[in-house]
Amino acid sequence: MPADREEFTRRIALLAERLSQKGFDAALIRYPLNIFYFTGAFVDGHLVITKRAEVFLLVYRTLGRPDFNPVAEVIPFRSLKKLPVFLADLSIKTLGLEEDRLPINLYRRYQKLLAAFDLGDISEIVRNLRAIKSRYEIDCLKKAAEILSDAIYSFLPKLKPGFSELEAAGLLEAELRKRGHPAFTRTYGFGQELAYGHLLSGKSGVIPAFVTTGQGGQGIYGFPQGPSEKKIQPNELILIDYAGWHEGYMVDQSRLFYFGNIPQKTLAIYDKVLALLEDLEQLLRPGISVQKLYERAVLKAEELGISEYFMAHGPEKVPFVGHGVGLEIDEWPPIASLDITLEENMVIALEPKCHVPEIGVIGLEDTYHITANGPERLTLFPRKIISLLD
Amino acid sequence: MPADREEFTRRIALLAERLSQKGFDAALIRYPLNIFYFTGAFVDGHLVITKRAEVFLLVYRTLGRPDFNPVAEVIPFRSLKKLPVFLADLSIKTLGLEEDRLPINLYRRYQKLLAAFDLGDISEIVRNLRAIKSRYEIDCLKKAAEILSDAIYSFLPKLKPGFSELEAAGLLEAELRKRGHPAFTRTYGFGQELAYGHLLSGKSGVIPAFVTTGQGGQGIYGFPQGPSEKKIQPNELILIDYAGWHEGYMVDQSRLFYFGNIPQKTLAIYDKVLALLEDLEQLLRPGISVQKLYERAVLKAEELGISEYFMAHGPEKVPFVGHGVGLEIDEWPPIASLDITLEENMVIALEPKCHVPEIGVIGLEDTYHITANGPERLTLFPRKIISLLD
Repeated sequence: MPADREEFTRRIALLAERLSQKGFDAALIRYPLNIFYFTGAFVDGHLVITKRAEVFLLVYRTLGRPDFNPVAEVIPFRSLKKLPVFLADLSIKTLGLEEDRLPINLYRRYQKLLAAFDLGDISEIVRNLRAIKSRYEIDCLKKAAEILSDAIYSFLPKLKPGFSELEAAGLLEAELRKRGHPAFTRTYGFGQELAYGHLLSGKSGVIPAFVTTGQGGQGIYGFPQGPSEKKIQPNELILIDYAGWHEGYMVDQSRLFYFGNIPQKTLAIYDKVLALLEDLEQLLRPGISVQKLYERAVLKAEELGISEYFMAHGPEKVPFVGHGVGLEIDEWPPIASLDITLEENMVIALEPKCHVPEIGVIGLEDTYHITANGPERLTLFPRKIISLLD
Repeated sequence: MPADREEFTRRIALLAERLSQKGFDAALIRYPLNIFYFTGAFVDGHLVITKRAEVFLLVYRTLGRPDFNPVAEVIPFRSLKKLPVFLADLSIKTLGLEEDRLPINLYRRYQKLLAAFDLGDISEIVRNLRAIKSRYEIDCLKKAAEILSDAIYSFLPKLKPGFSELEAAGLLEAELRKRGHPAFTRTYGFGQELAYGHLLSGKSGVIPAFVTTGQGGQGIYGFPQGPSEKKIQPNELILIDYAGWHEGYMVDQSRLFYFGNIPQKTLAIYDKVLALLEDLEQLLRPGISVQKLYERAVLKAEELGISEYFMAHGPEKVPFVGHGVGLEIDEWPPIASLDITLEENMVIALEPKCHVPEIGVIGLEDTYHITANGPERLTLFPRKIISLLD
C-alpha cells in the first residue's frame, strides 16, 4: 500500500525545518528519486519546498499519473526561464540544490539562471533525512524481505547443477519480477552499478570487481560483476546476495547454498563469520559510531583467525562491513572507518564475508532496523548454508 | 569476442587528436563506462590520456581482472593528493573533465586539487567519438540484435493470456539473461532509468511516465514505468520494446503481438506507422539533419492522418522520434528538432509510435547503422503484428 499523505507531509515538514536551521529559504529538487521521496510523484521537473513547508511541483511535460494527487501544487512549467521570477515571488533568496546529483554542466545552467540567488548544497540534509526511516518505510522493508525469501524458496527447486550462473540468476529474477520487482536497483555512489544482486558459484565469488560490494564475480564482458557463463557445479558454494524490493525500498541479504555434503572447513569458516555477525549485532544500537562497528569487525576477524580472508576483494580488501539501505542500495551511512553515529530508525545491512581463494565467498548479510532496544533483523531467510538435493 | 587492442588504440588516438584540436593537454576520465570505452577496463580510478596518446590508468583498489592487460600503464593510486604532481610531471596544463558526468560536489574537489591547471569540458568530445561506431561495435550491435530475436522466439511459446505483464517480462528477461544480458540497461540522461525495456499490454501502453521513451506503462509503485500487475488478455496488443545486449552494446527494438484476430483498425494504423518508418528510412544517410528527420516524421504522420496519436505520451507528446544507441540506450544523437547532422557509422533507433487511447501503443522500432549507401537495419525480428495461438 503506497504511503499516505501524512507520510509526505511529515517528510516535507522535516525538510522545511532543516532548511530553516541551515539558513535556506527553499530547496530546489531535481533528482527524480528525491522528488518521489518528498511527494510520491516520479516526474521530470523541479520540486520547490520552502522553509515554510510550501510545496510546488513544476512539471515539464506531465505528472505521469493522471489519477495521482501529490502533496504539492502542480504547475506546468515548460521553460526554465520563468524559474527565477517564480522563486523571487516566493521571497526566496537562499536556495539549496542537490550537489551530489547534479552534473556540473547542468549545475552551471542553474548558476547562470539563478545568478540573483545564493546557492547552497542540500545533499547532506536530504541524505540524513532519508537515512532515518518511518514506520511506513520499515513496513516496506519488511515486505521486501518477505518477498525476497518467498522468491528464493520458489526458485530453489528449479535450480540444478549444470545451469550457468546467468541462467540461474534469470530464474530467480523471474520469481522476483512476478512479485513486483522493477528489475532495477537504484544506487547512490558515483559510477556504481548493480543489477538485482550477485548469484555466484565457487571461485567466481572471489573474482574482484570495480564496484564497492562484498564480492565481485566474473560477470560478462562489458558488465564485469555478478553472474557469468560459469556452470554451477555440485560441491561448491552458491552465493545469493540479492536485494528484495517493495514500493521502492530494498533490503540486502546474502545466503549460501550447496549441492552435496558441505565440507567441514567451509562450515567452520561459516560458523566464524556468523559468530562475527552475531557479535556485531550486540553493538547495533543508537549512539554507536560506525567506525567502532567496523573496527570491532576487523578485531573479531583477527580473534577468529579469519583476517586473511575478511572483506577481501581479489588482492585488496574493501574497507567496510556494511551500508545503509532504503530507496538506494548504498544509502547513508556506510559502516566503515568514518565519524558517523548510528541513530534510531536507521536501516543498515551488515555483510561480513570471507574470500577464501580455494573455496569462494563464505559470508552472509542481513538488514537491520536500529531501535533503542537493539537491532530488529528485517531479512528472514534461515541463517545456515542450505544443502540442496538433500 | 572482446575488442582487440587495436580497437582501443584507435579510440585513444582519436581522442588524443581531438584533445589537441581543442587545446587540451590531456583528458582526466573518471566515469567507469568511459574508462571501459577507451581501455576495456571497468575500474574505480582515473584514466589520463594525453594529447600525445599516452595512457595511464590510476587505480584505487585493483584492476579487477588480474588476467586483463589493458592498453594503458596501470598505476596503483590510493590518494588523489598525488594527482597534481603526476599530471605536472607529464607537462599537462590544460585538462579536460567529464562535465556531463561529475556531480558538482565531486567536481569541486577536483577544482581545489587541480587549482594550478586550466580545467575544461570533454563531454562533447567523448560523446561525439562514441557516436561513431567501428566495425567491431557494429558487429556487437548485430549480435545484440540476434540475441534479442532469439530470446523473443524462445519466450513466445511460454507466454499465455492471464500472465501479468511482470510475470511475462520475467520470463522474457530470463531468456535474455541466459544469453548473457547483465540485467542492467545503461542510460545517459540525467535521472533517466530503464530496466531491459517495456513489456506492456493494451491500454497500459498509453499510460505516461516521466522517462523520455516512446511509451510509459503503469509499472509499479516506486518504479512507475514498464510492466505492471495488469493481466495480459486476449484481443489486446502486447508491446515488446526491449534492448538486446552484447559486450556492452545495445540495440533497441519494438514489436507487437496479439492473442486473437487482430482488428482491422489496429492493422490499418500499424500499416501507416510502418509506412512512416519506411519513409524515414529513405532519408537515413550521412549528411541529413536530425531536425529534418523529425519534421518529416511529423509531416508524414499528418499526411497519414495519425497526427493525433503520434508520439503522444499521455496528454502530452514527446518531441522526438528516435535516438542514438550504443553503450547507453540514449546515446548521441537524439532524433528531434536539433541542429545535428547524421554521420557515417552513427547508429540510431527510430521508434514511430501511435498512442491510441482505446487500443494502446501501435508502433515499432528498429536500430540502424548509417552508411553512405543508406541505412543498414540491425534489428531483425519480422516487422508485422504477430498473432499468437494461430
